[in-house]
Amino acid sequence: MPSKVSFSLSALALGLALSSHANEGQWLPMQMPELSGELERAGIELPAEQLADLTQYPMNAVVGLGYCTASFVSPNGLVVTNHHCAYRGIQYNSNEQHNYLEEGFLASTLDEEPSAGPNERLYITDKIEDVTDQVYAGVTDEMDGYARYHQIQDNRKALLKACEADDNYRCHVRSFHGGKKYYLLRQLMIRDVRLVYAPPESVGSYGGDIDNFEYPRHSGDFTFLRAYVAPDGSPAAYSEDNVPYQPKSYLKVNAAGVKQGDGVLVAGYPGRTSRHKLLSELEFASDWQYPVQAARYQHHIDLIDQYSAQDKAIKIAYAGTKAGLANRMKKLNGLLDGFRKTDIPAIKGEQQSAFQDWLKKDASHQAALADFAQLEQRLAEQRNYRQRVFYFHNAQSSALLNTANRLYKLANERTKPDAKREQGYQERDMKMLEARLNRLSRSFDAKMDRALWELDIDAYKTQEHKTEALDKVLAELVLEQAYDNTGLTDAQTRIDWMGKSVEEFKASDDPFIKMAVALFDANEAARKESQTLAGEITAVRPKVMTALLDWYDSRKQPVYPDANGTLRISYGVVDGYQAADALYKQPFTRLEGIAEKHTGTFPFKAPDDVLAAISDKRYGSFAQESLVSDNQSWYCSILPCANANKPSFNSVPVNFLSSVDTTGGNSGSPILNGKGELVGLNFDSTYESITKDWYFNPEITRAVHVDFRYILWMMENVDNADNLLKELELVK
Amino acid sequence: MPSKVSFSLSALALGLALSSHANEGQWLPMQMPELSGELERAGIELPAEQLADLTQYPMNAVVGLGYCTASFVSPNGLVVTNHHCAYRGIQYNSNEQHNYLEEGFLASTLDEEPSAGPNERLYITDKIEDVTDQVYAGVTDEMDGYARYHQIQDNRKALLKACEADDNYRCHVRSFHGGKKYYLLRQLMIRDVRLVYAPPESVGSYGGDIDNFEYPRHSGDFTFLRAYVAPDGSPAAYSEDNVPYQPKSYLKVNAAGVKQGDGVLVAGYPGRTSRHKLLSELEFASDWQYPVQAARYQHHIDLIDQYSAQDKAIKIAYAGTKAGLANRMKKLNGLLDGFRKTDIPAIKGEQQSAFQDWLKKDASHQAALADFAQLEQRLAEQRNYRQRVFYFHNAQSSALLNTANRLYKLANERTKPDAKREQGYQERDMKMLEARLNRLSRSFDAKMDRALWELDIDAYKTQEHKTEALDKVLAELVLEQAYDNTGLTDAQTRIDWMGKSVEEFKASDDPFIKMAVALFDANEAARKESQTLAGEITAVRPKVMTALLDWYDSRKQPVYPDANGTLRISYGVVDGYQAADALYKQPFTRLEGIAEKHTGTFPFKAPDDVLAAISDKRYGSFAQESLVSDNQSWYCSILPCANANKPSFNSVPVNFLSSVDTTGGNSGSPILNGKGELVGLNFDSTYESITKDWYFNPEITRAVHVDFRYILWMMENVDNADNLLKELELVK
Repeated sequence: MPSKVSFSLSALALGLALSSHANEGQWLPMQMPELSGELERAGIELPAEQLADLTQYPMNAVVGLGYCTASFVSPNGLVVTNHHCAYRGIQYNSNEQHNYLEEGFLASTLDEEPSAGPNERLYITDKIEDVTDQVYAGVTDEMDGYARYHQIQDNRKALLKACEADDNYRCHVRSFHGGKKYYLLRQLMIRDVRLVYAPPESVGSYGGDIDNFEYPRHSGDFTFLRAYVAPDGSPAAYSEDNVPYQPKSYLKVNAAGVKQGDGVLVAGYPGRTSRHKLLSELEFASDWQYPVQAARYQHHIDLIDQYSAQDKAIKIAYAGTKAGLANRMKKLNGLLDGFRKTDIPAIKGEQQSAFQDWLKKDASHQAALADFAQLEQRLAEQRNYRQRVFYFHNAQSSALLNTANRLYKLANERTKPDAKREQGYQERDMKMLEARLNRLSRSFDAKMDRALWELDIDAYKTQEHKTEALDKVLAELVLEQAYDNTGLTDAQTRIDWMGKSVEEFKASDDPFIKMAVALFDANEAARKESQTLAGEITAVRPKVMTALLDWYDSRKQPVYPDANGTLRISYGVVDGYQAADALYKQPFTRLEGIAEKHTGTFPFKAPDDVLAAISDKRYGSFAQESLVSDNQSWYCSILPCANANKPSFNSVPVNFLSSVDTTGGNSGSPILNGKGELVGLNFDSTYESITKDWYFNPEITRAVHVDFRYILWMMENVDNADNLLKELELVK
Repeated sequence: MPSKVSFSLSALALGLALSSHANEGQWLPMQMPELSGELERAGIELPAEQLADLTQYPMNAVVGLGYCTASFVSPNGLVVTNHHCAYRGIQYNSNEQHNYLEEGFLASTLDEEPSAGPNERLYITDKIEDVTDQVYAGVTDEMDGYARYHQIQDNRKALLKACEADDNYRCHVRSFHGGKKYYLLRQLMIRDVRLVYAPPESVGSYGGDIDNFEYPRHSGDFTFLRAYVAPDGSPAAYSEDNVPYQPKSYLKVNAAGVKQGDGVLVAGYPGRTSRHKLLSELEFASDWQYPVQAARYQHHIDLIDQYSAQDKAIKIAYAGTKAGLANRMKKLNGLLDGFRKTDIPAIKGEQQSAFQDWLKKDASHQAALADFAQLEQRLAEQRNYRQRVFYFHNAQSSALLNTANRLYKLANERTKPDAKREQGYQERDMKMLEARLNRLSRSFDAKMDRALWELDIDAYKTQEHKTEALDKVLAELVLEQAYDNTGLTDAQTRIDWMGKSVEEFKASDDPFIKMAVALFDANEAARKESQTLAGEITAVRPKVMTALLDWYDSRKQPVYPDANGTLRISYGVVDGYQAADALYKQPFTRLEGIAEKHTGTFPFKAPDDVLAAISDKRYGSFAQESLVSDNQSWYCSILPCANANKPSFNSVPVNFLSSVDTTGGNSGSPILNGKGELVGLNFDSTYESITKDWYFNPEITRAVHVDFRYILWMMENVDNADNLLKELELVK
């Protein structure tokens, strides 16, 4: 059934969130069978059991790509993901002769496929194992929070070490339902990833930052890569001898695509949601955390703008930092706007009350009520801690001090055996740390760093939560001298410090190293407090979650765990939405919309060949006469339906909306039709959807997808990518 | 029939403009009978003959209000118009004790109704007379352009003088179809206008300048006034003895309002359109005039912003100027954006070619073809003139020089008999000129005036078209001394100059008066050239218009004349529109939209009592369950129609859209249902509609109306205006 879009605000308050209903839910594949009825109603024909099986089509074609998702689309290891997910790989191959970001790239043969860079990886999840018992081994009720935290961490690290004994695997131990369950995820790691086909950036990120989180959208956010392995089929670093990987399966592409009202699936790796958190946690975020962060980001953006206007080197060095801040600002503003528009705290409050009422009705739930109270107590302590350390941590925001802190922490951790070190400081982390220390130079300028740091120091000084060691460091700090006399602005010097001992740090004259040494105990104390609180919460949140799941169970509601970067499935319906009073956003955009937005100025500068094809109406094989499902007379919400006739579409769809449940990490995720055939790539959410991290409002929450018909149209009518059109398995 | 909204761009090119079809057309009332079939199809039940008769309901209830339109709504002279049209009257009654702009105003009894100010007028058109022959009396083919221009002007002035012999009338002689016809319009002038009911500005212009030309809209842009006359029923200036005017008829209010798909009428005084102008005139506007004006306005706005940031007095004095500039900028940008989005020159070109082809087919049209060529020649000369004088005129933009020029022109005109003086300098114009000289002080600051003038002087100096006299004046000009030594910054001094002779001007030491004297001949020469060109065009455009009307006649298309500030009728359909790819704007906004937009910061600061009534869902008697016409299943374009059921509205409509054909001057115009009952007040157009001054695109052109149900809801549920609710004649 399509999501019903109604205007009654009261519907919002009916306790829909935290519960399962059509569209909401980032489900574990193994949960699919319990949803088979729902799937069928949504028009999903694939058997739920098949979806649950990671060794079968289509789930074994879905792969991770670091912070994105991708999928295999040919027997020869061809992979498709978002342009923005493959950005680094395209950038890596761009030089003064060929700027593939600007021009786009197409390899006509395997020989023309260059490496996407030595650090690109494809991760194929091949095992998900319940390791809850192993993670809690040795954890006792008597332990204090700190001991509990470290016992759990040690167990997790041991599991990872065993899992990663085979170099071809990367493993994760992830907490589900606030620590009620832990799963070990094993991922085969493909290390030779090559670039196959990328549109120019002017297509791949048409609309750029301006259109970020917006809709209507006209982005060709797709890129094709290829997985290569050693001739024997095993993962290997780049080598000329490597051959295309033969995946266990690959997604068929349905060239007829979907229409409004059709059911769709998305499979991918959503990063993090907070749907099961308590009202008090939501209120802390909305009333303190988000506004305070937003204010700080805005100050930083303003200062970067001010300095960038006067200094081109700063503008270039901090472009990425600023883009990141702007993106986070837009997200924070979207959250705060969303909380203002829909009273999500009130909705959460009603749900929580209903849960507590249920607990109170039954004497057997007395313990759960006490757990709930205890969790609230622990969370209040954690909020108190966070408010205290917010300014303390920010006052160390200089990239150089941050680096010095990290390096001195490493020197201290390296005095312990590897298994006992904190995560991030183990041998398995060293390569990433070195890369990070190296990278710093590209996004650093001493003048800018100092100005931003001063903002944060001033903010620390004008608030109440003081830390003696920091006060002392700041009192002695002469900013100009610190920047003039440090060696940490040099990449090799930073990397050299990775090998030095605690004593060498203590003996150093480098002003930032000296500050790191002086602040170490205070930072460690804060870290210990944080870990102790985390450990205490781990002791009680699983109990509360158990009670909550029992409550859902009593209401026959299946429940999905909050997103945690693990493989999930969501299903929904292709649909538009009411973005504001009298403003309806239709689910499909058209080629003509690209020309409509084109101004000739970045990011609305479409390539000439795309514009020419549009103005000549060269729709090719992928034009759609109508996007009305035959059984959906309510399609009239897409286009005004004169006389209730089906309106015509008569163009190629570019992007489309559906009500599937996604979040960051779902970028590049395949959108599948009811038969499990590829029809699009997820790449963004609408502005109104940003609050879905806390509450999924089915009336307005929409994910934005690249329509695969647009990708095929680009191949056929603009880029002549006949080789790829042949390699794909197109069905209708 | 509702307007068909389709996406085919080709439909735009089918020669729809300049022609008549559903919705397009600002018709003379007398043309209604020839449209009776169209009216019926649009759902207008009122007989066309009744609409044509200015002495019958509803047209005799429609009145002018200077630059706006209003209508009688009770037997006791109650009048309703837009809040922004009555703004001056509300401001006039506001003081430190009572700021009625901020608080709103409601008189509970006649005694509480204050004068809206001595200059407020209501104009009731009671006669429209064809005076073409009189206007052309004495005009011969042999006359040159200048003589022709003045012969026509003298005839017009004589007609006005005769008509206005009765003080109770104000008259106009207006040109139709480029001088093919002239009509004399006689308007009874009511001079005692009082304030009855105005919402606070936070309702009356909710959204302010930000929402200007935008939609969705939530403006309560309405105000009630009352017409008063002497006890004997004759118009009179304000007096305590005056009594409410008894209009010949008044509009009934239909409290059930309209639904999407319903036919509506609008009657009012549209100011100016250019639908019948030639392609070359459109191209001149789009390629030179608009871009050059927009650039100048933007420079002026930027400079005012810069000075306003440093000087609060300047900010206050130039707020109105800046708002006017910003409004014109938005309009110019809308025109230029519109020309970019839809190739209106191409559409006009096709139409003009079709007309010319028709002319060429028939030997009897040889003369018309020659006329056409001659008109093009004259227009080219006029364009050349306009480009030459643009910078010359702007270089005299100082408000003080402008004033001095006007005063010295008056001194020269006053040497002639009144009938021979130019319009604007006759005795009938003196009161308005004095008011204008008086008003200047409120929007003037010497520093700002000088800075803006310098911009224009610099622009003059850097272009090619020079005028010797001006070059000399500018060479001698010492700006600081000019401003220091002028007396024109004093209002009484300015007014005193109204009575002085040419010799007194010539003897004056005032720097601005001296400049006016030095520039007089050059200004007169430009004026003479302008009038000569106008006279020449008058000799040929009527011939071309006659041929054009013959062409339309051959196609059986009725044609309306371009708007010229005279009473017109337009009909259309309540409907939404496709504002951009995948973005559909629905025709009704709801009370909840007010709360949705409310930020607490002007102009989105709704009053507490309005917000409380909305959040309590106090919809009162005027809520609408559904806004689907029973015979309009295509209503699904308003709201997504799940399962083709009628969607619910369940609120009070605030604003609505229709396809009626309006322009500036239609503000406050009554929107009537098919029975001629009042259902709304026109107050704006959408951004996408701005190009309708040149070309009416039925797919996207929409006027924005206040829904009368919102006005009634405010009366009933917020302001307790029971007295007015009783005075109105509500029907369902």
